[in-house]
Amino acid sequence: MSYTTSTGLTIPTYMDVEIAHERIRPYIHKTPVLTSRRLNELTGAELFFKCENLQKAAAFKVRGASNAVFGLSDEEAAVGVATHSSGNHALSLSYAAGQRGIPVTVVMPRTAPKAKKDAVCGYGGTIVECEPSTSSREAVFAKVVAESGADFVHPYNDPRVIAGQATCSKELLEQVSRLDAVIAPIGGGGMISGTCLTLSYIAPEIKIYAAEPLNADDAARSFRAGHIIADDAPDTIADGLKVPLKDLTWHFVRNYVSDIFTATEDEIIDAMKLIWKTMKIVVEPSSAVPLATIIKNPEVFRGKRVGVILTGGNVDLDSLPWKQKD
Amino acid sequence: MSYTTSTGLTIPTYMDVEIAHERIRPYIHKTPVLTSRRLNELTGAELFFKCENLQKAAAFKVRGASNAVFGLSDEEAAVGVATHSSGNHALSLSYAAGQRGIPVTVVMPRTAPKAKKDAVCGYGGTIVECEPSTSSREAVFAKVVAESGADFVHPYNDPRVIAGQATCSKELLEQVSRLDAVIAPIGGGGMISGTCLTLSYIAPEIKIYAAEPLNADDAARSFRAGHIIADDAPDTIADGLKVPLKDLTWHFVRNYVSDIFTATEDEIIDAMKLIWKTMKIVVEPSSAVPLATIIKNPEVFRGKRVGVILTGGNVDLDSLPWKQKD
Repeated sequence: MSYTTSTGLTIPTYMDVEIAHERIRPYIHKTPVLTSRRLNELTGAELFFKCENLQKAAAFKVRGASNAVFGLSDEEAAVGVATHSSGNHALSLSYAAGQRGIPVTVVMPRTAPKAKKDAVCGYGGTIVECEPSTSSREAVFAKVVAESGADFVHPYNDPRVIAGQATCSKELLEQVSRLDAVIAPIGGGGMISGTCLTLSYIAPEIKIYAAEPLNADDAARSFRAGHIIADDAPDTIADGLKVPLKDLTWHFVRNYVSDIFTATEDEIIDAMKLIWKTMKIVVEPSSAVPLATIIKNPEVFRGKRVGVILTGGNVDLDSLPWKQKD
Repeated sequence: MSYTTSTGLTIPTYMDVEIAHERIRPYIHKTPVLTSRRLNELTGAELFFKCENLQKAAAFKVRGASNAVFGLSDEEAAVGVATHSSGNHALSLSYAAGQRGIPVTVVMPRTAPKAKKDAVCGYGGTIVECEPSTSSREAVFAKVVAESGADFVHPYNDPRVIAGQATCSKELLEQVSRLDAVIAPIGGGGMISGTCLTLSYIAPEIKIYAAEPLNADDAARSFRAGHIIADDAPDTIADGLKVPLKDLTWHFVRNYVSDIFTATEDEIIDAMKLIWKTMKIVVEPSSAVPLATIIKNPEVFRGKRVGVILTGGNVDLDSLPWKQKD
């Protein structure tokens, strides 16, 4: 169903999204869309929050991971899957593999938070530790794949993963009519690419915006430069958004995204707390970046019906980014 | 539609609930029901969480307050409504009166949290302050009503309020089939009475349990003694559950509730944090009391399909009841 470009990229199509949705439906939630009168008043827009923080494993990444895992033949699946990630993709792939009952190996830096490691193990995943450097990660991961023959499910630069993430805005369009725009955070670009895949096919009139931490604004700079710029090790509280674009996600970003906005660390934290306070849901910092940029750019969003993708809710409740009263 | 008992109580009927639901539908959310595989594994039960923390004003109390406000004639409504409350009923009545565009006066102790006062004012309510004692509150409130002629909407001991709260389990039964039990927190007993009103009429086979802080266990002691026991000033983190039963709510509790369970302060805080962590939603301490008692009493709930009413989400994010890492 997918097609291959002249440069050798394998691009998923909307038919892949429909197949993905049928395939993963038993393993994911159709997450609710919440609205907030106060946030509408604050922004002058009508905001529709797609709550992937309430998704299985508390992250949209379960969609793409499940599509990859359940798309394998029985023979392929028996060998298992593997990835490198210290974040939501690790949890999500472990969840999906656990649902299918197949082996999953995750290469994680030994410095990754214990809570994340525990969650991977809780879903039945096997962790192989590496040093916290790209070279160590790549060497260890290559060894894992060579020895196990496991199928590598990349966190975002994989057509199966993008087709899975694309089911999120497919649901959103079923839940909310007449949207003018959709905005989602951008890190490696998996969610944005899925959003582009769905909207460019079934609702090309809806504008697509991406939101990024100013401290990790490589996608915004890539967008302006017209080619991928990858930073080495950006530092931001939105820890899901540190990774760079890759060729497949860049294909979607450069062709379908209208603009990429940025927010400072303080703006992200304020928006995160505002979501907790007004909407009574727990979202991680990455999820709050779109709202932060909507508040900053009222002229873009005022009077518009805007889908806002809240990408995840995995946050350490014992280490919140705002001060407690004594 | 309601009927009057030999002792002079005006008891709402299920027809009042149906009328209430039609009346308040434009002003409330049909709140989602969430499930958690992890909490099911932990408790051995199948739990269905009715998320009134995601309700307007973040509290189920909007249901009863809206039913009272929108049930008034235009002449009555023009005079306005009044109540005394420092909690969710104050916010909810202010919200409902604001929706109808009528005056609302709330008598609050001058020591009430600024956040609560701000929220009442934000909805357009007028605050009249009293001293933090029952005698001052009653004197000030009597003066307000005498001078304004406003309709007194009691936080719970009012048939209109109970019929409104009863719409919550009416929705729950539409959303979840084959429940074995429903459990809700108990303070003054408004939510539990509404639950009894609905279930006793349309699903009398479903057991009704109440959950209460051990530090404010007057309802549990009343239940065992067979008459209302009112404590003076119980101290618990579940600040919505400090108030005593009254004649109307006692009617429902003694006739329809199967048991009342209690939880310690630590158990309540642990359950609250567990809900935030696993379900990614913000609930206030009162909302967590039912889960705390389910965890404590596995023999009662194991293997059962249990509706759990999460009553509200109004909590000070700057003053959480667990420690932050440095």
